[in-house]
Amino acid sequence: MKTEILTMLRESDGYISGQELCERFGVTRAAVWKVMNHLKEEGYEIDSVQRRGYRLKAVPDVLSESEIASRIKTRRLGRKVVYFEETDSTNIQAKKLAEDGAVDGTLVVADMQTAGKGRRGRIWQQRPGTMVSMTLILKPEFAPDKASMLTLLAAHSVSGAIEKLTGLQALIKWPNDIVINRKKAVGILTEMSLSLEQDSIHYVIVGIGINTNITAFPAEIQDTATSLLLESGKKVSRSELIATVMDYFEKDYDLFLKTEDMSSILEDYNAHLVSRDREVRVLDPKGEYTGISRGVDNVGQLTVETPENGIVRVYAGEVSVRGLYGYV
Amino acid sequence: MKTEILTMLRESDGYISGQELCERFGVTRAAVWKVMNHLKEEGYEIDSVQRRGYRLKAVPDVLSESEIASRIKTRRLGRKVVYFEETDSTNIQAKKLAEDGAVDGTLVVADMQTAGKGRRGRIWQQRPGTMVSMTLILKPEFAPDKASMLTLLAAHSVSGAIEKLTGLQALIKWPNDIVINRKKAVGILTEMSLSLEQDSIHYVIVGIGINTNITAFPAEIQDTATSLLLESGKKVSRSELIATVMDYFEKDYDLFLKTEDMSSILEDYNAHLVSRDREVRVLDPKGEYTGISRGVDNVGQLTVETPENGIVRVYAGEVSVRGLYGYV
Repeated sequence: MKTEILTMLRESDGYISGQELCERFGVTRAAVWKVMNHLKEEGYEIDSVQRRGYRLKAVPDVLSESEIASRIKTRRLGRKVVYFEETDSTNIQAKKLAEDGAVDGTLVVADMQTAGKGRRGRIWQQRPGTMVSMTLILKPEFAPDKASMLTLLAAHSVSGAIEKLTGLQALIKWPNDIVINRKKAVGILTEMSLSLEQDSIHYVIVGIGINTNITAFPAEIQDTATSLLLESGKKVSRSELIATVMDYFEKDYDLFLKTEDMSSILEDYNAHLVSRDREVRVLDPKGEYTGISRGVDNVGQLTVETPENGIVRVYAGEVSVRGLYGYV
Repeated sequence: MKTEILTMLRESDGYISGQELCERFGVTRAAVWKVMNHLKEEGYEIDSVQRRGYRLKAVPDVLSESEIASRIKTRRLGRKVVYFEETDSTNIQAKKLAEDGAVDGTLVVADMQTAGKGRRGRIWQQRPGTMVSMTLILKPEFAPDKASMLTLLAAHSVSGAIEKLTGLQALIKWPNDIVINRKKAVGILTEMSLSLEQDSIHYVIVGIGINTNITAFPAEIQDTATSLLLESGKKVSRSELIATVMDYFEKDYDLFLKTEDMSSILEDYNAHLVSRDREVRVLDPKGEYTGISRGVDNVGQLTVETPENGIVRVYAGEVSVRGLYGYV
C-alpha cells in the first residue's frame, strides 16, 4: 500500500483526499495516516490539509524499498527490490540472495556500501546518499560463454539512462566503465556462478555503481573520477535513475535474449565507445601491446587493429585508452 | 593437541604413557585425561591402564575434525577441515565459506547432508554415518575455461582412492560419476564463481559424494546405485577414504597445474573410462545422437565417433552409456 500511495502522491497535481485513499485500499483513516507518517519519517515532505487531503510538497533524494518500487515500471528486472540502508556490498548480498533462491530480476540496492569494490578489488569509500549502488540478479538459460555480454548490456543501459536524465554524453569504456568528459562516473562488476558438469548458469549478478551526487573525490582520484552532479551541475534523483536503468536494461536484455549476441544494440553501443578509433594499450597476460580500437564485435569482444598482428580480438581484461585516466 | 594424540594412539602398537603425553605437549595429566574423555565421547574405544597408559582398542567409523585432520597427509588440499555433523549440503556451506574468504584447499565434510543434491538437482536422502560427503574449495589462478577439467581430476582421484582401499575396480562415467560393477557409487558436482570482466576465477568448489557404507537403497534406484560396502563386503573407514582421496587429488592437481591440461593423467584416466569404446547416447540441446566413445582428449572433452559427423567432441552435458543405468 505504501508503494501505491507514494506513486499516487507523486503522480497527482493536487491533493488526494484521505477518504479516496481509504476507499481505494479498503482501510481506515488511521491506517492511511500511519502510512503518511512513515513516509514523513523517510524524508518525504507531505502537506496534509483538512478537507482537502494529502499532497507531496517536496521529493527529497530518498532511497527505500517503497520509493524504488514506486518508480519501477518494468515487467521483470527490478520488480522485486531488496533495499539496505547500509551493507558491505550489494554484490555480496546479491550472491547470498541468489544462493538462497532469489527470483530472476531481483534488484539489490544500498544507500551506502561499506565494502564496495572497484576493479582489482580496491575498496571504495562512500558517503550515504551520494551513489547508486545496486546489483541485479539474473538467472538466464543461455550458455555461460554468452554471459560476459551482460556487462556490455549493463554499460549500454546505464549510458542511455544517464544521457536521458542529465543530457550529458555518457561514453562506454569497454567493458565495464562509463566515462563522462574523460572521467570515470560508473563502474560495473559482473560475477557468475555456474555448474561445470552441466555447463549451465546458476546465476549472474550485475553490480552497478554510479557516482551520482558526489561533490568531491579524494585527491588521488580527483583527476580520473567524476559524478553526475559535478558534470551536470544538478542533483539527480537516485530512485529515478535506478528505475530508468532498469527500464533501459530490460529493453536491451529482452532483445539480447532473442539473438544471444550483440546485434540489436551493436551500432548504438559502438557509437558510445570511448575508445572507438583511438589508441589503446592491452594488458594481456602474455604481454602488453598497443593498437587502434575498432569497436566490439557481435559477441562483445573488442577488436583492436595492431601493427604486428592485424586485427586482434580481446575477450576480457584491462584495456587502457590513450587520453584517459592518465594514459598519454 | 587432540589431533596429534589421536595420530599417536593410532600409530602406536602398544600403550602410550600419560607421562609421555604430558611432556610432549607440556600439559598436566588432567588435560590429557580430558582429551581422552573427549575422544571416548566421539566413539573411540580407549583402554587406559595404570602405569602403562593409553591404547586405542578399536577405531569405529567416526568422523570429526580431529579424526579427519589426523589422517590427512597432504601439503595443501584438506589441510584445513571444516566439519559438520549435519548440514544442508557441503556444496552450499563451501560456497558460503569461499565467499567469506576460506583458504585454497579448505575441505568441508559432513557426516550427513539433509539437502545433498544429485545431478539435475534431485535431493538425495542420506543416513548418518553411511556416506562420504565432502566439498573441496580451490582458488586456482588459471583461466575459467580450464576449470571443467577439475571434475575429471576429482573423478580420477576418487577412482584411485577407492581402488587402493577396496581393491574394487572403480570406473569413471564421464564427466562426474564413478561406477562399480555397472552401478553408480560416486557423484561429483563442481561449481565455479568467476568475475566476467577479468575472466578470472573467484573459486571452484568440488563436491564429492561417495556411497560408502550404505547397506540398502530405495527401490527406485537399487538397480543403478551401489556402495563400497555392498560391492566389497567390507566397511570402509570414511576418514581414511577422505584422506586417501585428498592424497590422490593433490598429486593429480599439482601435475595439472604444470600443464593446465589432462596430459599427465590422460592415459590412466582413459583406462578407467567406463564408456571407452562403447556406444553412448549424447543428449545435446540441439538433438540427441549416438556414437562410440573414444576417450577424452587433452582438454577433457569426450570424443565420440559418430556415423554421420565423424569425431564429435562433447564439452559438457548428459551422456548415457549403453549397458549402464538402464540404457540398453
